[in-house]
Amino acid sequence: CSFFLSPKSTYPVTDPGHSVKCSPVVIDDVLLNGTTLDIPAAEEFIHQSMAIIIEDAVKKATDVREKVCEWRSPDQLKELLDLELRDGGESDSKILQRCRDAIRYSVKTTHPRFFNQLYAGMEPYSMVASFIAEALKPSLYTYEIAPVFTLIEDAVLRKMMELIGWEEGGDGIFNAGGSMSNMYAMNLARYNHSPDIKEFGLSAAPRLVMFTSQECHYSVSKAAALLGIGTKNVYMFVCVCVCVCVCVCVQGAFPFMVNATAGTTVLGAFDPIEEIADICEKHNLWLHVDACWGGAALMSKKHKHLLKGIHRANSVAWNPHKMLMACLQCCAFLVRDKTSLQLCHSSGASYLFQQDKFYDISYDTGDKSLQCSRKADAFKFWLMWKALGSSQLEERVDRALAMARYLAEEIKKREGFRLLMEPEFSNVCFWYIPPSLKNLPDGPELYEKLHTVAPVIKERMMKTGSMMVGYQPHGDKPNFFRMIVISPQVSKQDMDFVLDEIHRLGKDL
Amino acid sequence: CSFFLSPKSTYPVTDPGHSVKCSPVVIDDVLLNGTTLDIPAAEEFIHQSMAIIIEDAVKKATDVREKVCEWRSPDQLKELLDLELRDGGESDSKILQRCRDAIRYSVKTTHPRFFNQLYAGMEPYSMVASFIAEALKPSLYTYEIAPVFTLIEDAVLRKMMELIGWEEGGDGIFNAGGSMSNMYAMNLARYNHSPDIKEFGLSAAPRLVMFTSQECHYSVSKAAALLGIGTKNVYMFVCVCVCVCVCVCVQGAFPFMVNATAGTTVLGAFDPIEEIADICEKHNLWLHVDACWGGAALMSKKHKHLLKGIHRANSVAWNPHKMLMACLQCCAFLVRDKTSLQLCHSSGASYLFQQDKFYDISYDTGDKSLQCSRKADAFKFWLMWKALGSSQLEERVDRALAMARYLAEEIKKREGFRLLMEPEFSNVCFWYIPPSLKNLPDGPELYEKLHTVAPVIKERMMKTGSMMVGYQPHGDKPNFFRMIVISPQVSKQDMDFVLDEIHRLGKDL
Repeated sequence: CSFFLSPKSTYPVTDPGHSVKCSPVVIDDVLLNGTTLDIPAAEEFIHQSMAIIIEDAVKKATDVREKVCEWRSPDQLKELLDLELRDGGESDSKILQRCRDAIRYSVKTTHPRFFNQLYAGMEPYSMVASFIAEALKPSLYTYEIAPVFTLIEDAVLRKMMELIGWEEGGDGIFNAGGSMSNMYAMNLARYNHSPDIKEFGLSAAPRLVMFTSQECHYSVSKAAALLGIGTKNVYMFVCVCVCVCVCVCVQGAFPFMVNATAGTTVLGAFDPIEEIADICEKHNLWLHVDACWGGAALMSKKHKHLLKGIHRANSVAWNPHKMLMACLQCCAFLVRDKTSLQLCHSSGASYLFQQDKFYDISYDTGDKSLQCSRKADAFKFWLMWKALGSSQLEERVDRALAMARYLAEEIKKREGFRLLMEPEFSNVCFWYIPPSLKNLPDGPELYEKLHTVAPVIKERMMKTGSMMVGYQPHGDKPNFFRMIVISPQVSKQDMDFVLDEIHRLGKDL
Repeated sequence: CSFFLSPKSTYPVTDPGHSVKCSPVVIDDVLLNGTTLDIPAAEEFIHQSMAIIIEDAVKKATDVREKVCEWRSPDQLKELLDLELRDGGESDSKILQRCRDAIRYSVKTTHPRFFNQLYAGMEPYSMVASFIAEALKPSLYTYEIAPVFTLIEDAVLRKMMELIGWEEGGDGIFNAGGSMSNMYAMNLARYNHSPDIKEFGLSAAPRLVMFTSQECHYSVSKAAALLGIGTKNVYMFVCVCVCVCVCVCVQGAFPFMVNATAGTTVLGAFDPIEEIADICEKHNLWLHVDACWGGAALMSKKHKHLLKGIHRANSVAWNPHKMLMACLQCCAFLVRDKTSLQLCHSSGASYLFQQDKFYDISYDTGDKSLQCSRKADAFKFWLMWKALGSSQLEERVDRALAMARYLAEEIKKREGFRLLMEPEFSNVCFWYIPPSLKNLPDGPELYEKLHTVAPVIKERMMKTGSMMVGYQPHGDKPNFFRMIVISPQVSKQDMDFVLDEIHRLGKDL
């Protein structure tokens, strides 16, 4: 007799561990004998999907002859995808087709002609690590649930702290994005300034203010809003003027933190950390370095000077999912002090962080976190680091920056292209000036017309699918392109292609 | 002539899209012709790793005859794993062995005898969706970067809102955990109460206070600390007394929010939403329902009464990665109001959310988010929902709750077991009382001794690897076991096994 209830399959489930006895047990009309999950069918489905993933999401996605994206408008795509969720399920073959379609109409961020964001390229070791983590579903609250990944996170954090130059170590945590890391920093800086705020809130506290460069990531303002600091209490300075700002500090307000950016989002610029650290030390301010983007330079003997002084920071945000190509997301928040991450965030939930466990509970790192369930993101960096070694990570960074330098030189050579500034990092910002605007003198008329050029070229490149490069205005500067060079798959030929293609798409404008 | 620089491989890279011209271009000692990523070798590595993932992380991990975990102490495991990151890289075969080891020593949260957390079990469709997302690396800032996943997120949110009963829709976002959802809720509630706080902060604001049940998740306190509300301004009530608390509202403080929990973490209890909604409406308080765990009951005609009144909530947190088995993490935050999520969180970063795009920028959902890069978590739920249909999701919920009911009945029948309370949901909380304590009367001596029983049994089950069940104290109650039943792979035989095994492991205590 058997009670196999596998609705997705017609053959009996033969899991010998679940041998079914003959007396049926029914509660609330549900038969509870045997399993209702058809494991062999599930394995077969996963097996088939793997072939599709390798073919479409790896091979084709990284093939330069294929499109970066197959543009469809929202309305067209809704119709193609049949998004509605219904009462009845669909066959496995139908679901496999849905997988193919989802891949087909997605942007291929691993494609060698994707230069649109601060991440790009395919990293096979990190990808495999992320598949393993997805299959195992660890959550990093406690050592008992995630022993391997807890230790790996610790090892990666330690190595990153070594590169920052914290000789006595520190503490840290991987979390769901650089924005969250900046939020952690602000919370720790505040806790360091006034630990009572954790319990009593800000309503009785004096007005806290912080300083950052104008070029900082928008998450600094978001965090100030969320933390009840208020966006108006974030004083933005032009890099070198930080000293002035601190001196001109507003009456009745208490500065608690300076945010320096190592590698800004648009320009790839670096704040002078040493100078800022001097001021922070003098005024006893928490120094946070947002090195989400520029932290990668710490891997390179040639370029780490960009972050000179970072060892003096109280905290650092650094995203290996950007230039170092770990799979999305892989974001470390690091703090020099060894206790405040725990003290500031702990809530001591007794159902997770029992004190009477049989192992060393200092390995239960979850109480340091703002999240409860938390993914094994460090593993995605660890496995690739093991495979490549620090030396190849260094080579990749050096090559990306050399490639950006090549592109900048080409832009200077080519008619119709104008560099916004000499690149400090791998961001190359430039205008394309179509022949029709060639003879216009610098001034409002040129700027106004130039402002409309990049959006049209972007539309055309998306619809062609030949490449993806971002654009934006900046201060009073009209829309310009921002190229981001990361992937080791990319060559000088791709740089040449980008410029040729922009000219091809925009020469009639 | 060729410039193939693939350090991981000995054969030439033959990507015809990257045909290499003959003049070498060298900048900063880096040769920039050709690629340095060996794509065929990468594909071969991914291919080989897939076989390991299917064999070890899927088949063996879900095989009831295999161990749930292979316990090693932190020190033992550090030695086994060789965690150190070095200058030199390692061969692919060595890395594949590292993959095997990482899987081997990890806890198998998809194993049918893993009952330790509020998630469990293997969901093949969701797993495949997560592999696809990992391979494609989408980030949900803008439609242009993640067209497919943006539309899918919207479709899933709409369907979830329909189940909540918001007939006129609402807004929402998937994010990195239920703790973050509760944080969003608190921020929106505060914004709704005093929108100026976003800009000016809390220092000039009156003291804000909020109410929640004692049984709420610890993230409510964490969020209050982070947001500058202060943990002391979170008033905890025993469920039904919410009215009293609101009336006895502290002098000079402004209540802005009530948090109700639908499915508490330890006991699986449900706050009476209708009653709380009456009070919130009367006092104009934002009602947030933390249905991270219990939201799954909305799929079931039989059990949705547990959340009666949820349509009156202003916001809802609901994690499909829990009972509905989407891959970790899959967490929706939903809000009835259609504009405040954007208004409260927007920062309008001009490099991402350009206003002069060629498509409808209402699809650029990233500005609603506290995160910048954000994963395609909704896809993991959408694909399995398409495969199973609402009807099979409903069957799963009904079966899990029937299974919990069966377990509770068995506990009542068996000598040596005592139920803490009748389960409302799939949490079954109980004590095991070893024969040596059988004749002790209820009272402090029994409680004190009982308190030490569960930790020892837990240690033994971890070291045996036969199953994983959590334990915790609660209020004045000594340590008890909390069984969580979720996976359709689990049968009544597994329930019987759990009780037999606890007895086997603890009968000598």
